[in-house]
This record gives sequence, structure tokens and C-alpha cells, in this order.
Amino acid sequence: MSGCPYFGKKQLLFQNKFQVKEEEDDSQEGVNKASKGGIIYGDYLQLDKVVTAQVLQSELKGNKIHDEHLFIVTHQAYELWFKQILWELDSVREIFISGHVRDERNMLKVVTRMHRIAMIFRLLVDQFAILETMTALDFFDFRDYLSPASGFQSLQFRLLENKIGVADNQRVPYNRRHYRDNFRGQESEILLKSEQEPTLLILVEQWLERTPGLEEEGFNFWGKLQTNIYEWLRLEKEKIEKLPESETKEEMLADLAKHREVFTALFDEKRHDHLLSKGERRLSYKALQGALMIYFYREEPRFQVPFQLLTSLMDIDTLMTKWRYNHVCMVHRMIGSKAGTGGSSGYHYLRSTVSDRYKVFVDLFNLATFLVPRDWVPKLNPSVHTFLYTAECCDSSYCSSDDSD
Amino acid sequence: MSGCPYFGKKQLLFQNKFQVKEEEDDSQEGVNKASKGGIIYGDYLQLDKVVTAQVLQSELKGNKIHDEHLFIVTHQAYELWFKQILWELDSVREIFISGHVRDERNMLKVVTRMHRIAMIFRLLVDQFAILETMTALDFFDFRDYLSPASGFQSLQFRLLENKIGVADNQRVPYNRRHYRDNFRGQESEILLKSEQEPTLLILVEQWLERTPGLEEEGFNFWGKLQTNIYEWLRLEKEKIEKLPESETKEEMLADLAKHREVFTALFDEKRHDHLLSKGERRLSYKALQGALMIYFYREEPRFQVPFQLLTSLMDIDTLMTKWRYNHVCMVHRMIGSKAGTGGSSGYHYLRSTVSDRYKVFVDLFNLATFLVPRDWVPKLNPSVHTFLYTAECCDSSYCSSDDSD
Amino acid sequence: MSGCPYFGKKQLLFQNKFQVKEEEDDSQEGVNKASKGGIIYGDYLQLDKVVTAQVLQSELKGNKIHDEHLFIVTHQAYELWFKQILWELDSVREIFISGHVRDERNMLKVVTRMHRIAMIFRLLVDQFAILETMTALDFFDFRDYLSPASGFQSLQFRLLENKIGVADNQRVPYNRRHYRDNFRGQESEILLKSEQEPTLLILVEQWLERTPGLEEEGFNFWGKLQTNIYEWLRLEKEKIEKLPESETKEEMLADLAKHREVFTALFDEKRHDHLLSKGERRLSYKALQGALMIYFYREEPRFQVPFQLLTSLMDIDTLMTKWRYNHVCMVHRMIGSKAGTGGSSGYHYLRSTVSDRYKVFVDLFNLATFLVPRDWVPKLNPSVHTFLYTAECCDSSYCSSDDSD
Amino acid sequence: MSGCPYFGKKQLLFQNKFQVKEEEDDSQEGVNKASKGGIIYGDYLQLDKVVTAQVLQSELKGNKIHDEHLFIVTHQAYELWFKQILWELDSVREIFISGHVRDERNMLKVVTRMHRIAMIFRLLVDQFAILETMTALDFFDFRDYLSPASGFQSLQFRLLENKIGVADNQRVPYNRRHYRDNFRGQESEILLKSEQEPTLLILVEQWLERTPGLEEEGFNFWGKLQTNIYEWLRLEKEKIEKLPESETKEEMLADLAKHREVFTALFDEKRHDHLLSKGERRLSYKALQGALMIYFYREEPRFQVPFQLLTSLMDIDTLMTKWRYNHVCMVHRMIGSKAGTGGSSGYHYLRSTVSDRYKVFVDLFNLATFLVPRDWVPKLNPSVHTFLYTAECCDSSYCSSDDSD
Repeated sequence: MSGCPYFGKKQLLFQNKFQVKEEEDDSQEGVNKASKGGIIYGDYLQLDKVVTAQVLQSELKGNKIHDEHLFIVTHQAYELWFKQILWELDSVREIFISGHVRDERNMLKVVTRMHRIAMIFRLLVDQFAILETMTALDFFDFRDYLSPASGFQSLQFRLLENKIGVADNQRVPYNRRHYRDNFRGQESEILLKSEQEPTLLILVEQWLERTPGLEEEGFNFWGKLQTNIYEWLRLEKEKIEKLPESETKEEMLADLAKHREVFTALFDEKRHDHLLSKGERRLSYKALQGALMIYFYREEPRFQVPFQLLTSLMDIDTLMTKWRYNHVCMVHRMIGSKAGTGGSSGYHYLRSTVSDRYKVFVDLFNLATFLVPRDWVPKLNPSVHTFLYTAECCDSSYCSSDDSD
Repeated sequence: MSGCPYFGKKQLLFQNKFQVKEEEDDSQEGVNKASKGGIIYGDYLQLDKVVTAQVLQSELKGNKIHDEHLFIVTHQAYELWFKQILWELDSVREIFISGHVRDERNMLKVVTRMHRIAMIFRLLVDQFAILETMTALDFFDFRDYLSPASGFQSLQFRLLENKIGVADNQRVPYNRRHYRDNFRGQESEILLKSEQEPTLLILVEQWLERTPGLEEEGFNFWGKLQTNIYEWLRLEKEKIEKLPESETKEEMLADLAKHREVFTALFDEKRHDHLLSKGERRLSYKALQGALMIYFYREEPRFQVPFQLLTSLMDIDTLMTKWRYNHVCMVHRMIGSKAGTGGSSGYHYLRSTVSDRYKVFVDLFNLATFLVPRDWVPKLNPSVHTFLYTAECCDSSYCSSDDSD
Repeated sequence: MSGCPYFGKKQLLFQNKFQVKEEEDDSQEGVNKASKGGIIYGDYLQLDKVVTAQVLQSELKGNKIHDEHLFIVTHQAYELWFKQILWELDSVREIFISGHVRDERNMLKVVTRMHRIAMIFRLLVDQFAILETMTALDFFDFRDYLSPASGFQSLQFRLLENKIGVADNQRVPYNRRHYRDNFRGQESEILLKSEQEPTLLILVEQWLERTPGLEEEGFNFWGKLQTNIYEWLRLEKEKIEKLPESETKEEMLADLAKHREVFTALFDEKRHDHLLSKGERRLSYKALQGALMIYFYREEPRFQVPFQLLTSLMDIDTLMTKWRYNHVCMVHRMIGSKAGTGGSSGYHYLRSTVSDRYKVFVDLFNLATFLVPRDWVPKLNPSVHTFLYTAECCDSSYCSSDDSD
Repeated sequence: MSGCPYFGKKQLLFQNKFQVKEEEDDSQEGVNKASKGGIIYGDYLQLDKVVTAQVLQSELKGNKIHDEHLFIVTHQAYELWFKQILWELDSVREIFISGHVRDERNMLKVVTRMHRIAMIFRLLVDQFAILETMTALDFFDFRDYLSPASGFQSLQFRLLENKIGVADNQRVPYNRRHYRDNFRGQESEILLKSEQEPTLLILVEQWLERTPGLEEEGFNFWGKLQTNIYEWLRLEKEKIEKLPESETKEEMLADLAKHREVFTALFDEKRHDHLLSKGERRLSYKALQGALMIYFYREEPRFQVPFQLLTSLMDIDTLMTKWRYNHVCMVHRMIGSKAGTGGSSGYHYLRSTVSDRYKVFVDLFNLATFLVPRDWVPKLNPSVHTFLYTAECCDSSYCSSDDSD
């Protein structure tokens, strides 16, 4: 923004189109003359609200503790950025919900915004280092004043979890209470609503299910892949069996058997549904196929940006767990673990949330288990499979790119 | 804070001492029952102000641009952290102004807070990466709506510069206007006041002037150092002159002459005052001596923490210029340099502020020019110079450590 | 790699295809039995070379200085990463040089590798913080032993500059010497060769010149853009002229005139060539058009990844200048600026290289000067301009994607 | 180093003292004339070893995979920095072992080096982001070639763990094998030796046990603290008991009882020894007292730098677990967790090492459980307890500060 003096002038040129009111408010004369009816920095950013919102409880209670200010500002900075993440996340979900994602002109927007969320999370992970300049003793001096305020009461963080797709039944309960019980009426409703709306997980799932190339009557990726893999394993077995008997040969055969099991697990839809019901997988069977297809053909023009999207989803998932882990580390430092005292602590609860149960796109990570050598990936022919390099662009009158979202 | 459930209970224990009102406000019953008269997260952080302060000008003008939200949040996050930096800076300045710094029990506080400021600046430098996920085109879509708002109008940033010690006469003027002209009446007065109050530079200067060991009638560091250095240079000259004539010998003699000049520049008080008047040096001659003394004897117990303070001051100075430079890089990307168009731009102005003129503690860096081999540093004797390991702790009734600041 | 125990087993399965020699070397029995003829960690990474290459000059000279080890390791880490950057850069240049880039299946590779280079540079910028834990005094203790070793002698860094496209005539000379004079015979030749090979700049330029849509007989982007812009400016002028006379109106007209100048500068090919000859622009006129086209239509499927490439190029350019600037800051701290001593220093030379002269893709930044409102960007029709969503995929027999590079 | 041209000249001045051989080696004439018998950059850094140590197994096997180079360089960079960390760690351990730490002039060195280790670890944590630009598929292309090389075979990392103080009996076994079984004869011996030498944990423990103020016949910190705490709890109980009966009162009493338990756990030496034997505490009872004393009196001049040391130790501990956690996240992405396949993976092993069992200075964190309000910390009187501001500086002839280490 500091570059804006450049625009201070420029704006004059286009001022008329922004309906600047011609009459100036006389009472403000001399005050914002420079602004010529426009807006100035502090008002634009509403700094009268943002930088006056630091009220120390310790000061109110007559015992001002210097470090409480840091504590407040750090948490406010977290909440500011959570708001931004929600802004991006909602806009991406909206593109998916409205069907705009079918017009592939919107994919850059989707990927860019997911990438931005990742960048913000990276900053938020680093931000703990600042709060950690406060020692346990400094915190002890004011922590009693804050009760019962608690990060468990961060509405935006819970919204974020819900909108990405953390499952209610995967949450670790704290003190045997449902997470929503920490919130007041209206907030609790907002949370409930966020659980019922399509999550990013569900939207991505639906999108993956439509991956071109999955059609059984068309390229039939899944069928071809299954055929190839079993052929590959068969050939491997043949090769091994020709070797003279030895301990190594035994091991190789054992290995091969394990390998076959791994792929059997992949092609067994019932098993998939069972894992789904336990929360160990989160994507539908069809969506899983779409994701693996994008993995294998990521260099095809049609799949380049979709592949970037899958990568971004893993980035965000990883960064959220890193955020959780860094949070745990800070809490350990601030309040200890109560180890050896017979007590239990928030530390242990938080630690339990650094778990794959909280990873939403866990399937994208686990697909790494099911890779095969490039030679065994079903071959595509660009002159037949033109979907590989031809994007879907809806007729602009039907699904126009909405610049405003 | 998320660890606070631990304290939700604990607080009960000490509740009485915080004058918790016994009667609960019935009208809020059911709403914050859990809070038992305490405060909850969102209220504590005043999130009703902080996360509702994002009003898009583009939306007001009927053309909502998605990325303006990022623009607002990023700048608000900067301002939040500027507030925190000012909080720390004011508390450190207060310790110096009140004379509490004479009680060396306060040195840990000073160093810790300066270090915290450095940590925050490090985050702020990284934070540009987030705003840079917005492209020039995205910015172009809404930048006209912001006029004439400009980062030049950031009160807190100017306060920060002034309180650290950026000199008014070192500032690069922009559009031939004084920096204070960008501010309205009250803000302008606050800025003027900040120029007149003792800056961190001045306070550190006064503290350095009191460095134990500088007393001419005592250890007389400066006198001894001067004697040693000239003796050292004399001996070097003797050694070189004994060598057979050669090109190398000539070069060595030329080098020695240059070296002598460097030290002559150091011991010439008039020259120092001349450089001071031009703004090329900022510390008094006496303070410079104190700083060099702390450099040389940094391992002595008395000087360990003071040395850390000097390092922190350089860190902050460097980080402020890195912040400026990263800012310039972002502005280049957002609005271009107008190179080759005949125009001039905010970019060029900002670039000119990435200069040693804006480095406040430039002398601390430049002392690196005046180092000498350890053998030639005047020797200290711990059994005589006990000031090296004995800290000054004022009588507690006189200068009590004030926990609240 | 630590995850590799997983593969320790798995490898057995495919071992035969890697021509593992059946006979084990008896002399090594007992030593690497676990390795079963494979390779172990330390040998794979050649740690016998890498972690034994830290020889302290100070120790050789009989005066071991602890911090010299940090100095060596930091520089070795820089060189290791420079090697990686060159590896990525060469592979990208090879894709361009061989014409493989015409097969757009290679674009993901290109973009991913450029992004990786940016990630590495980000680490290298941060890495200075580690070396800065060494103080000027610590450095002073051993710096004489290093003479005349100097970072000017880093072959890889110069190669990097040359291969990206830093122009020989844009370099700031140091001590009136050509940069290549710091290198010995063979190295000097390698450098000369790198100046003569196609730089990344030139390769990107050629690629930009082929941007679909530039053809005058086809979509004719440049012609249409010029028409639109002048029409836009004409309409703006009409609107302003209808306003009653006022100071504001005068300013608006003056502004408009400046704006017209800006665009005149854009559409004046002679001026472009003049700026090219001075080094203020680096891309050909045609390539500039291609870049601007990609900017405006970045959301079209065909241009999404190319737009990411342009962004990466700016990222790398910016990060290289940040690297330079962080380097300067560190040098200032280590050796001072010799300000006020009559001497000149390496600090001032290095500072002068933090300049737009060293920005290779400066045009991509400066295009931000030439943006226009979306309404005035020439319209494209997906049903006519099918190039927008159809990628070019060469026949695989002709330009096969080479997985190995 | 790039600043060294400055020194290229300067060195001439002092050349004679470095025994530069007068005769130049004719055979090298023309080659290193510029070096005048000194050393040049590439030779100094042994770049002929460092940047030629990247041999791709995939290339040797006839199937060059581009990304293997990144894999090698990243791991080499890790090992380079591990070497540096070991260098710092050994020097700090040496200061403790030799008793030099009794001369408090060495404390700055200790703290600075520990801080440097923390800075390096911070970089190493960030460094995973670079390797994560490699996808699971890219890794799959060459991972078989690496077998059985594994990060388990990193000698330096295990040394690092041992020297800091990871306990053998706290390690999670992998595949039922002792960690040392992954190493060959000589390496295994080096590891065994590192287990037997005094670890940083043990050295810090001994140092903490000597904390001035612990002497029972002197200030008797522990005795006074115990008295104060029980008095405090007694008064709290009295206050609560005066309240009218209520649910809240019940809760407060229950809380108080828990609180008493916490402190009972602190003052019970037998319990401490029991926790020690289980590995839940790592410091001796006396050392724990010393640490808590430093916590409470950290602002006293004598304890300022010791307090910084304790903070550094926690930083390093935390960063090592963050390194482990980031490593796990990367491995999950590269090889998946094999969830739902019936297999087990390196991922799960690595995940189990992100545990408090691997935190060496876990007691320093857990002390946060035992804080008390400042009013109840035993009072010190500077005029009596002069140890608070008087450092111990050994007679220089006895324990001279050794500049070389």
C-alpha cells in the first residue's frame, strides 16, 4: 500500500466513476483535505478498532503484566489470519458448489487460493516462535486472570476444521465434552451449520469422481490398471521362481506376497468401504481412483493444474498438523505436562489431536503406497484420448467466470 | 491459550482474590454459564472488533474484488504487530528513562524485549510472501478504490522510526513533502512529540557513555587502546622495513599507511563530530568508546548481557532495512517501476529509503572497521578491575524492580 | 530417507533388475553384510568426502579459531545448494533448448523445477541468520588466514548468474577488474562458455515470442490492445472535459496526459529498442507482447501454467536480489563500511550489486505499469479461439518426454 | 566471504606472521598468481570434494532420474549441518568437562553456541520444504536403487542424540533391532563411546547442582521454598473454608487438594527417584532444585545468562522433536503409511519417536507445573546474598579462557 502515492494522483483520473460525492463535509475541512473525499489509511483499515482492542485483564485487575499484551496480540493475529483463510476457503468451496469448477478457467483461481492458504499456515506455524519469547513464569503471572477463556472457544478455528472436513466422530473429546459445548447459542448454530454444509473434502471428492478417463466404457483407467498390476506381479513371480533356492529367494517371495496383499487391498471395494466407516479412509472409492489417475498422468496438460491442487491439499493438511504440533510444544513450555504429579493436563489432550485422525486428505498421502513403475501405468494415446489436452470451458454465457469471487 | 482448560479449574482456587462478582448477571444466564463470571475467549480478544474490521472498498463501490480482503488483513496484521513492537519499545525506553537500567537486574528484561522485537520483525519480513500471492493484476482491480489511502499514512510505523531514532533530517522527502504532512492534526502532534522524546538511540548513547572502564582516572580504556594501537602499527612498520625491497614490500607499506589512517580517523574527535553533523555517525564520541569497550571485553561477566544488547540493536536495525527492502520488492511487483515511461514512482522513493541513512545504530556496524588483534587489546586484571564481574544492584528501596512494566 | 527400512525389504523384490552382482566381495564380509550387496547411507552420500572437507586455516597456522568451522560449513552449504540450483536450471534450459517445451506436457516439469529453485533460494536467504551468529570479532580472529580467498571466486555463483542471464555489461566492476579475472584458466573458460550458451532469459524470450494469439493475421493481440487502450483514453478525456473547470479537472487532465505517455512508451518499438540497448529492458518487443498476453489471459487453461512460470521467474529474480541484500547486511556487520575512514570497502561494491541492473526478468515486473481495466482487454471467444484451451502435445515419437532429465 | 577483497590487500600487511613461504611454486605459476601464495576460495572450501560427491545411483543403473540429485544434496546438507552442530556441541561439552564453566567468563560462549545450534535446527526444520517439492512418484522412480541405504545409518544423527543425552533405554526399537546394529564396526564403536562419555544432560546436571543458593547451610532455597509453599496452601485453605457452603466451594477445595498433591510430588525425593528410574524425569533431584532456583531468580545478574542457557536447552529439545515431526510428515508423503494394507511401515516407527521419551530436558519444561506466585518465592537480600551479582572468575593462570575452542 505504501506505493500508493503513485495512485493518489492516478485515482483522480478515474474518480468520477467511483461516485465520489462532490460536496465535501465542511466539518472535516482541514482534517482530511489531502484525502479529497477519498479514504485514508487508518480509516480504511479501521485501525480505531484493530489497534485499540488490546485490553489487559491483568491491568483491569490492578496488576498490569507486561507480557499479557503479547499474548493478546498474538492471538488476535491468529484470528485475523483465520478469517483470511476462511475467506479463501469459502470462495473455493463456492466455486465447487456452484459448479463453476467445471469451467476449467476457474482452476487457476482454485489452486492459487489453496496455495495462499498454505502460505498463511506456514506463517502461523512460524508465529509460535514469537509467543515462545514469553516464559512460563511470565505467563504464570497473568494466566489466572484469563479464566475460563480458552483456545477451545475459537469459533473460527473450529469453522476452519469443519469446512475443510475434520469429521465430528474423529475428534478427540476433551473432558468428555463435545467440542460444540464450548460455544454459546448463536456460535453453536454456526458451527452446526458448517458441519452440515458441503466440506472441502466432499467437494473435492465429487470433483475427483468426475476425473476424465475413469469411465468404464471409455478409457477405463481402473480396469486397465488392475489388469496391468496383476500382470506385473505375475511376471515378477515367474522371475523369482526361476532363481535357485536360497534364503534370498524366500525373502523375495515373501515380499512379493506382501506386495500382492497391498494391491489386493487397493482393488477391494468392500475393504475400502470398511476403512471408510472406520474413518481410516475419507474419499469414496471412485474419488480415490480419480486421484490416482491424476497422480499417474500429472504431466498431461489437462491434469497439470489438478495435480497441483492435490499437492496443495496435502500441504494444507500437513501444515495444519504442524500447527497443532507447534502449538503443543508451546503449551508444554508454558504449563508443563504435569508428568509425575497425578494430574492430567491440556497438554495431553492437545497432543492427542496431532494425529492422522485429524488429517482430512489422508488418502492422498496413502496413495503413495500404491504406486507402480511407469512401464506398468496404462498407456494413453493423445490422438485418441484428446481429453488429455483439451480443457472444458463452459460457454461464457452459461458459466461466466465471476471475477468478484 | 488453548491449554487453558487446565486453568479453568485452577482459577477457582484463587478466584476470590480477583474480586469476581458473586452475583451472576441473570440476563446472560445460559449464555456464558460455563464462564462462571469470568471472561471468554472472543470477548477477551475483542474479536467483535478485530474480525469485523474488514470492509472492502471494492464491495462498497459495487464491484467486490476477492483479493482486497487479503490486502486489508495483511495490513491489519502489520499494524497489530507494530502495536506490539511499540509496546515493547516503550517499555524498554521507560526502563532507560527512569534510570532503572542502572539496576542491572533489569538488563535481562531489556535484552529479552529487544530480542522479541527482532523476532517480530523477522515474521514481518516473511509476511510479504503472503501478500505476494496477489498478482499485479489482482491489485490493479481494486487499487483505485483505495485512493488516497497510503502506507505513508501509517502512524505507528512513523512512531516506530522516530522512537528508535530515525533522524528527521536523514529522511528522504517524498514529493517534496515533509513526512508529517501526511497526517491529520492529532496524529501530527503525536508524531512531533515522538521526535522530541528521548529516542532509543539517545538512551542507549547515555547508557554507553557510562560504561565502566572508560574513566580516564580509572582503567582509561581509550587512552590505553590508543597507545597500544600506535605501538602495534610501529612494530609492524619495523618488521616490514626489514624486508628486502620488493613490490610486495611496497604494497605492505602502502597498506600499513592506509591502516594508520583508519585508526587516525578513530582517534580524531573533531572528525567524529564532523561525521556526526553529517549524520554519518550517530553516537557521541564517548558512547562510541563504550561500545568498543563492550565489544572487546564481551566475555567478562559484566559485559555479557550488554554485548547481547548491542547485538540486538544491530539485529533490529538490519531487520528494519530488510523489511524496507522486501517492501520495495513487493511494490515493484505490484506497480512496476515505470522505467522507460518518463514517469517517476513510489517504487523509486521506497528504494531510496533502503539506505544507511535509515540505519540508526550504524556506528555499531562500523566499529567492525576498528578491530585489533586480541594481543593488542589493553589487558584487564580481574583482581584489580572488579567492576568486570560485579553488577550494580541498586538498593531495592531506592530503585525497585517494577514487575508491571 | 529414514523411511527406507520399508524399502530395505522391498528392494529384494526387484533386485534382479538392477544387476546386483551375485558374488559378494569376501573382503567386506561382516562389514556390510546388512547391505546384501547394496549401498549404505554413508557411501551413497559420499560422506567420507563431504564431512571431512572442513580444514581450518587457523588450525593449520597454529591458532585454531572455533568459529572458522561455521564459516566453512556455511559456505559449503551454499555451494551444495548452488549445485542443486544449477542442476535444476540446466535441466529446464535443456527442455527449452531441445524444443521439448513445445510439447506442453513438459510445462509442469518446468514450472515445478523453477518453483524448487525459488524454494532453495528462500532457504539460502534465511541461512545468513546462522552465519550472523558469528560476531565481527570472531571473524576478525581468523579472516587474515583466508586471504586471498574470496566469494568473488565462487565459480558456481557466477555460472548461476550467467545461465539465468545477468548481462556482462550490466555488472558492476570491482577494483576495475573484469569478474572473470578472478578465475583460473579452466574455470575462466567454463564461465566464458556459460556466457555464450543460451541463457534462461533468451530461452524464455523465444518461448514468449511464440505465444499463441500474437499472430497479426490471427487474433492480433497487440493490434487490438493498442486500439482498445487509445479508445479508452479518448473516452476518459471526453468525460473529463465535460466537467466544470476546476483545479481537480486540471489535475485530471494532467494525469491523463501522463497516462497517455505511459502507453505511448509501451507501443513505441523504437523506444523499446533504445531501452534494450541501455539494458533497461531485457526482453524483445515480441516477447514483451507475449508476456502481457499471458498476464491478461492467465485464467484461460492454456495460459495457466505459463502464467505460473512467469511468476516463478519473478520470484527467482526477487530472491536473488534478496540474497544479495542479505549478503550485504551480513558483510556490513562483519567488516563495517569503513565509513568516515577515507577507505573504500567490499561492502560498497556489494551494495551496488543490489540493483535492478542485476534483475534479469525486470520486464515482467515493469509490465505492472501497463495494465488496463478488464473491460478494455480485447475479448476472446472460446469457440473461435480454441487455442485457449487446447494444448500442443507433440507426437510422442517425435518429441518424446524424456523422463530422465 | 565475498567481502574479502577488502582483506586481499590487508593480508599483505600481516603476511609475514603466517609463515607464508617466500618461494612460489613455479609449476603453479599463472594458475594462482593472484593468490600470492595464499589460498583461493575453491581450495579453501575443498569444493573438489563437496560438489563432486553427487553420484546418482539411478544413473549408475542406467536410468537417470532427475530428482535423485535433490535427494542427495538435501541429505548432504543435513549431514554438513549435523557436523556443525556436533562441532558446537563438543566445544560446549568440553567447556563443561574441563571445568572452564566455573569461570563464568565462559558462559557467553556456551550460551552463544547453544543458541547457534538452535538456529541451525530451525533451518533444518525448514529445509524439509525443499525435499517436499519432490513428489511420491518422483521418489518412487529411484527409491529401489538406494536399498538398503537408510537414514537409520546416519552416524552423525545418532551421535548427536547420544551426546545431548537421548537415553538408550528410551529409544523405540525398530524391527526389534538395537539402533547400533545398523552400523559397521568402527562406527558402532564410535557410537558406543558417545554413550559412555558425559552427555550434555549430565554436564548440565552437574552444573545445576552447583547453583549458588542451594546450600542448606546457606540460603537454603529448597527448604525455604517448601516452607513458603505449604504456608501459602494453608492460607488458601483457610480463606476457602470461610466461604459459605456451595458447589463452588467444593470445587475450590478439590482444586486445592490437587494442587497440594502437585507440590507434594515436587518435594518427595523418593518419588523423584522413581520417576527417574522410569525415564520420566532425567535430572537429579538437586539439579532440579537448581533449575527452579534459576527460574525464580532469573533477573538477578548472576542468573541472567544461566537462565538463557536453560531456555536454549528447551529450544534445542523442542526443535529436535519438530525436526522429527517434520521428517515424519515428509515420509508420510513419500511412502504413505500403508494404512489399511495389513503392512507396517517406517512411517509408524518414525511417528513413535516424536515422543517425550526423546525429549532430553523434559524436566525443564515440566517445571512449569511447579510455579508459585512471586510473593511466595523466598526473598533474597542483595546486601547479604552477594552471590547474586558477583560472578566467579577463576584466576587467569589457573583456568585461562582458551580462545581456540
